[in-house]
Amino acid sequence: MATSGNDNCNANDSVWQFRGNRATSDAAAVTLRKLVFGMFKNCNFNNGKTILPSTTHSFKTCPEAEEAVAAAVRSGMANSYAPSPGIFNARRAVADYLNCELPTKLRPEDVYITGGCNQAIEIVIDSLAGNPAGNILLPNPGYPHYDARAIHSGVEVRKYDLLPERDFEIDLDGLEAAADKNTVALVLINPNNPCGNVYTYDHLKKVAEMAKKLGIVVISDEVYDKVVYGERPFVPMGTFASIAPVITFGSISKGWVVPGWRIGWMAMNDPNRILKNAGVVESIEDCLDLTPQPSFLLQEALPEILEKTPKEYFAKKNKAMKRNVELSFERLRDIPCLFCHKKPESCSYLWLRLDTSVLDYIENDLDFCTKLVSEESLILVPGIDLF
Amino acid sequence: MATSGNDNCNANDSVWQFRGNRATSDAAAVTLRKLVFGMFKNCNFNNGKTILPSTTHSFKTCPEAEEAVAAAVRSGMANSYAPSPGIFNARRAVADYLNCELPTKLRPEDVYITGGCNQAIEIVIDSLAGNPAGNILLPNPGYPHYDARAIHSGVEVRKYDLLPERDFEIDLDGLEAAADKNTVALVLINPNNPCGNVYTYDHLKKVAEMAKKLGIVVISDEVYDKVVYGERPFVPMGTFASIAPVITFGSISKGWVVPGWRIGWMAMNDPNRILKNAGVVESIEDCLDLTPQPSFLLQEALPEILEKTPKEYFAKKNKAMKRNVELSFERLRDIPCLFCHKKPESCSYLWLRLDTSVLDYIENDLDFCTKLVSEESLILVPGIDLF
Repeated sequence: MATSGNDNCNANDSVWQFRGNRATSDAAAVTLRKLVFGMFKNCNFNNGKTILPSTTHSFKTCPEAEEAVAAAVRSGMANSYAPSPGIFNARRAVADYLNCELPTKLRPEDVYITGGCNQAIEIVIDSLAGNPAGNILLPNPGYPHYDARAIHSGVEVRKYDLLPERDFEIDLDGLEAAADKNTVALVLINPNNPCGNVYTYDHLKKVAEMAKKLGIVVISDEVYDKVVYGERPFVPMGTFASIAPVITFGSISKGWVVPGWRIGWMAMNDPNRILKNAGVVESIEDCLDLTPQPSFLLQEALPEILEKTPKEYFAKKNKAMKRNVELSFERLRDIPCLFCHKKPESCSYLWLRLDTSVLDYIENDLDFCTKLVSEESLILVPGIDLF
Repeated sequence: MATSGNDNCNANDSVWQFRGNRATSDAAAVTLRKLVFGMFKNCNFNNGKTILPSTTHSFKTCPEAEEAVAAAVRSGMANSYAPSPGIFNARRAVADYLNCELPTKLRPEDVYITGGCNQAIEIVIDSLAGNPAGNILLPNPGYPHYDARAIHSGVEVRKYDLLPERDFEIDLDGLEAAADKNTVALVLINPNNPCGNVYTYDHLKKVAEMAKKLGIVVISDEVYDKVVYGERPFVPMGTFASIAPVITFGSISKGWVVPGWRIGWMAMNDPNRILKNAGVVESIEDCLDLTPQPSFLLQEALPEILEKTPKEYFAKKNKAMKRNVELSFERLRDIPCLFCHKKPESCSYLWLRLDTSVLDYIENDLDFCTKLVSEESLILVPGIDLF
C-alpha cells in the first residue's frame, strides 16, 4: 500500500496525521534511567544468580522522616494544590538548612521546592535556554541528566574535564578554553558524582572567580551534601555567591536514601541580584507554573525531615558507606582490568577505569557491563561518553 | 552606564552573559495557576472579611486513601527510584480501574503513571510536537494548561466551541473547519471542566468518527470521572478506540479531593496500534525518561486507593456537591449580572456568563473578578480568553 507523501501514517484505511516527536529520543537516549533500566533488561533471570545490587535496600531511611510523611497525610493539610514555588514552610526550612553553612543568608523566597534534583535541572536549563546559540559547560565525567535536558532545551553542551591526577579537580584552563560569549552557565557537582571527591574551599573560590571572568552562572549540584564519609569537609558553593551568582540544587534523595520520594529544591544565591536583574528568577518562576509540582505531602513533611533527623543517623549511615567503599577498594586491587583512581570520600559510586587490553572479546565499557549483567547478574553502569 | 551591544547584563563591573528565557513567560502567562494565585494577591487582608473559597477544605479524602499512603511510607518499599513509566502494580491497578467500563481492555503496559494530569498534558503534547507546523484543537471554554503547554512546545493552538444551547456539546462543524493537514489531536474534557456537562454515548461516538475522518488522535481528559452528580452517566472515550485512537488522562485529584498529592495516569486506548506505529508511544516513553517521576510513595499507595475506596465515599461526596450546586444555582437567579447556562451535572465549577451592561465601572470579567477579590475577598476565576 502506498504511503502518502507527507510522512503520514496509513492504517485501517485511514490516514493518521500525527507522528511521535523524534527529537525526544535524542535527549532520552543519554539519560541514566535509560542506561540503568536498559542494563536490567540484560539480566538472565534463569541462571540462578542473585541480581546485584539488590533492589531491596541495605540502607534504610530514618523513622523521623517516615513519621513526618505519615503525619502530613493524616493532617489533611496537604491535599490542596500547593503554590508553584512551593509552600512557604518548606522554603523556609530549606533556607534554614542551607544557611547553617552560608556567610550570606538565603531568604525563604530564594528557595524553590522541586520534585527532586532532576526537576531543578529541567527548570534551570529551560530558564537559561532563551539564546538559540547558548551553550553550557558540563563536567566530564558527570551526571547525564544535564546533557539530556540541555539537548531537549536546545542548549549546546560543552565539556570540561575533571583531572584524576589532581583529585578530580576541575581543569580550569580547559573550562576557560571551552567557553565563549554564548556560554551561560557551568555545572559543578560537589560532592562529586560519580568521582566521589569533595572540592576544597580554595578550588571552589577559583571556580567562582572563573565564572565571574566568563560572566556565567554557577549551577552547583549538592545532592550528596549529607553523604560525606572522608576527611575533607563539604563547602557549599553559595559561600562564593558574592563573586558570581550560584544556583544550588539539593534534595533529601541521597542523604535520607529516599530517591523515590521525589522532593528537592533549588536556591538562588544571588546577593548582588544578578540573576534577578537578568530575568533568570522570573523565568524560573514561569517554568514552575508550567511543570508538575512536587507532592504537597512531601512538601508538608520536609520541615520536620530537615529539622528532626538526628545527626547520628547520618553518622551511622556514612560509617557503613565508608566500610563498604574500603572493602570494595581493597577487593578491586585483585581485579587486573579495573583501576580506581581515588578512594571516594563521598557519593555512592566507585568510578573505575576499565583496561580492555587485558580482556578477550571485550570491546569497551558498555560491552563489558552488558556481558557482566547477562553472565553474572551484576549491574555496573558504563561510564561511556554517549554524546 | 552603557550596556553591551549583545544584550548582556552589566552589573558589579562584570558582564554577565546569561538572560532569562522570555519564551517561558508567554506560556506561563496563560496557566490557571498564574491566574488563581494572581487573584489571591488582590485580597485585602485588612478588611475583616473571610477569604472565600476557604483554603481549609470542606471536603475530606477517605481514610482508606490516607492509610494507603501511610502504609506505603512505612513499608520502606517505595524509597528507591521507580521505573520511568511507573511501577507495575500501579499500572496494573489503573488498567483494572479503567477496564470496568471499557469494551477493549487495557494492558498494564498501556498505562503510564504521571504526577497528576498536568504532567500527562505536558508529556503528550511534547510527544506530538515533532512537526514544527503542527496544531492541536482545544475546547473553548477549556482548561488553560493545554494552551500553556502547547505554546511551550511550539504547537499551534486552534479552538473549537462548546455550544451552550446544546448542553455544551462540541461544535463538530466548527471543529472540522478549524482542522487541516497539520492537525495532530483534539482535546476533549469529559466530564467537562469548566461547563459541568457529561457527554452522551452518541455524541462521543460522533467525536471519534470525526477524529477518524481528520486522522487525528483524541486526548480525553477524564479527571472528573468520579465527580458526577447529575443523571447522565459518564462514558469513557476509550469505548470508541476502535474508531480512532484515544489517550485517556485520569487522576485521583478530583474524585478523592487530593489535587496536592500529584498522582495520575495516561492510558493508550490503541487497539489498532496506530499510536504505536506512528511512534507516539515511543516518544511518550522517551519523555517519561526526561521528566520528574511522580513520588514512588503515591505510586505504591495507588492500587490500594483505587481498590479499597468504598463506593459510599463517592456517593456521599457527590450528594453534597449536588446540594452545593443547587443552592448556588438558585441563589444566582437573584444576581442580575450573572447567568448560568446549565446546572452542572459534574465538575467543581459553575460556568457563568457575566453581563457587564447592568454594571457600572466594570470593563470585563477579569476586571469584575479583580474588584470582587479586593472588595469582598471572594475569589472567582475569570473565564476570559487570554490567548
